[in-house]
Amino acid sequence: MILIDGKQTAFTIKEELKSKIAKLKAENQPVPHLAAILVGNDGGSITYVNAKVKACAYIGMESTLITYGNEVSEETLLNKIEELNNDDSISGFIVQLPLPKHIDERKITLAISPSKDVDGFHPENVGRMSLGLPAFVSATPNGILELLKRYDIITEGKDCVIIGRSSIVGTPMSILLSRNTPTGNATVTLVHSRTKNLEEICKKADIIIAAIGKPHFVKAEMVKEGAVVIDVGTTRIEDRSKKSGFKLYGDVDFEAVSKKASYISPVPGGVGPMTIASLLLNTYKACVQSSSKLANHQS
Amino acid sequence: MILIDGKQTAFTIKEELKSKIAKLKAENQPVPHLAAILVGNDGGSITYVNAKVKACAYIGMESTLITYGNEVSEETLLNKIEELNNDDSISGFIVQLPLPKHIDERKITLAISPSKDVDGFHPENVGRMSLGLPAFVSATPNGILELLKRYDIITEGKDCVIIGRSSIVGTPMSILLSRNTPTGNATVTLVHSRTKNLEEICKKADIIIAAIGKPHFVKAEMVKEGAVVIDVGTTRIEDRSKKSGFKLYGDVDFEAVSKKASYISPVPGGVGPMTIASLLLNTYKACVQSSSKLANHQS
Repeated sequence: MILIDGKQTAFTIKEELKSKIAKLKAENQPVPHLAAILVGNDGGSITYVNAKVKACAYIGMESTLITYGNEVSEETLLNKIEELNNDDSISGFIVQLPLPKHIDERKITLAISPSKDVDGFHPENVGRMSLGLPAFVSATPNGILELLKRYDIITEGKDCVIIGRSSIVGTPMSILLSRNTPTGNATVTLVHSRTKNLEEICKKADIIIAAIGKPHFVKAEMVKEGAVVIDVGTTRIEDRSKKSGFKLYGDVDFEAVSKKASYISPVPGGVGPMTIASLLLNTYKACVQSSSKLANHQS
Repeated sequence: MILIDGKQTAFTIKEELKSKIAKLKAENQPVPHLAAILVGNDGGSITYVNAKVKACAYIGMESTLITYGNEVSEETLLNKIEELNNDDSISGFIVQLPLPKHIDERKITLAISPSKDVDGFHPENVGRMSLGLPAFVSATPNGILELLKRYDIITEGKDCVIIGRSSIVGTPMSILLSRNTPTGNATVTLVHSRTKNLEEICKKADIIIAAIGKPHFVKAEMVKEGAVVIDVGTTRIEDRSKKSGFKLYGDVDFEAVSKKASYISPVPGGVGPMTIASLLLNTYKACVQSSSKLANHQS
């Protein structure tokens, strides 16, 4: 069994970006610049945004953190988004979710210019991805593709089962793995709460991607000997023995399943650490794309 | 075996729209207005666009046909699209594909405002559909959903196999049938040229949607007794005994498969006639949406 180490892979990606950005600086090229809008004082959001800002600093990427109190109006946010859309010095930006209830998250997502939407949440990016056009793919699916690629896991012709049809993980993963690309060409079955013979379907899979948010849902009996198992689930369960007060549970019964799997990603330390790396990859891409557009305009 | 009669269903939809539009007229509400841009003299395109215009007239929908010669510039087309985007009297419009080679089809598709894109080809509409947001779904997938709905075919919990992963049929169908909706909730497997055990997978399906473009690809041995079979394929094969000079072949060996299927759609007369009906449904929807937006602005 080979452990898919997301922490190490994310580290490698950051090192690669660090040297690419150093090269841009040496050549006097524009350096990627990520802006993040943070609203309110949700503990999780603050921690996560801070980790993003810290990661930018580590790799030499510029970052701007814009914070608002919980009471900020939707209009103020929309104005700021418009400003960032038109600011050539910003390669891409994100609005950290969730937002306070008086703000329409959908309206906010739609206001971000698709060319700066490094979170890949705008419908135009989702559609471009589905159509096989260049797009920003959102952090988790992008991170999973990077893991498959960097661990040389062959997807072509494999039977792949995705558990869970969420808009941010299951559905995009099903599209990405079906496409005619080096990390695609799999035969994908998307299973969910209405699926009748879920265990039987999983048992035949060469690759299982579990993104259902139910702790230890995938048991050893549901997994074929030698399957690749990617665990996307993260459920917090209270645990007073932990400093944080909780323990993170994946969707996969790791201890039992790891004895049968050929490759398996753990929780924590698997897909999770890849999300920030994916965001940095997208921001780097946005910067390079806008630089080449600018060069085309000037030539 | 029940024959899924697309011709009859399309006729019913047109009759429904006809009376809805008559009602709009009686109430002095804006009437749907479809514009179509036709470039060059491709025989198929001319026939198809004319059929659309004729269908509009039949149901009392307004239509405008804008034609250009083969040599029209991309800029002229883009200017016309911009004009139609901003013309409040146009509910929605289409640019008939294919276009001459000197014109970038992708650029043209992206220029159409998503709110007037009644063909549902703009990435924003594809993405909105994937995210479960209100969207214009393109003609063929939309037509298949209408057939499933109007024949009371239950999709929930069914094993559904889609053959072919094209951007315009297979991929959107896989997303639509997976979603949590009355015509969704199926367990979908998308199979394609790289799938290894295609026959075996098809044999287990409760619902098969064949959209691969290979005449009589689906044989009776690949179909379970009682399965629902939807045939999307249309391949023209020369046949001098026909007035048109060709015969239309579906992806399904109808004669043999119809003996096992519970429901089956023929070619011709199945999914094909539904495409124009879908376009009319989308244009009607675009009109109603823009009227209600206008009313909201005025109130």
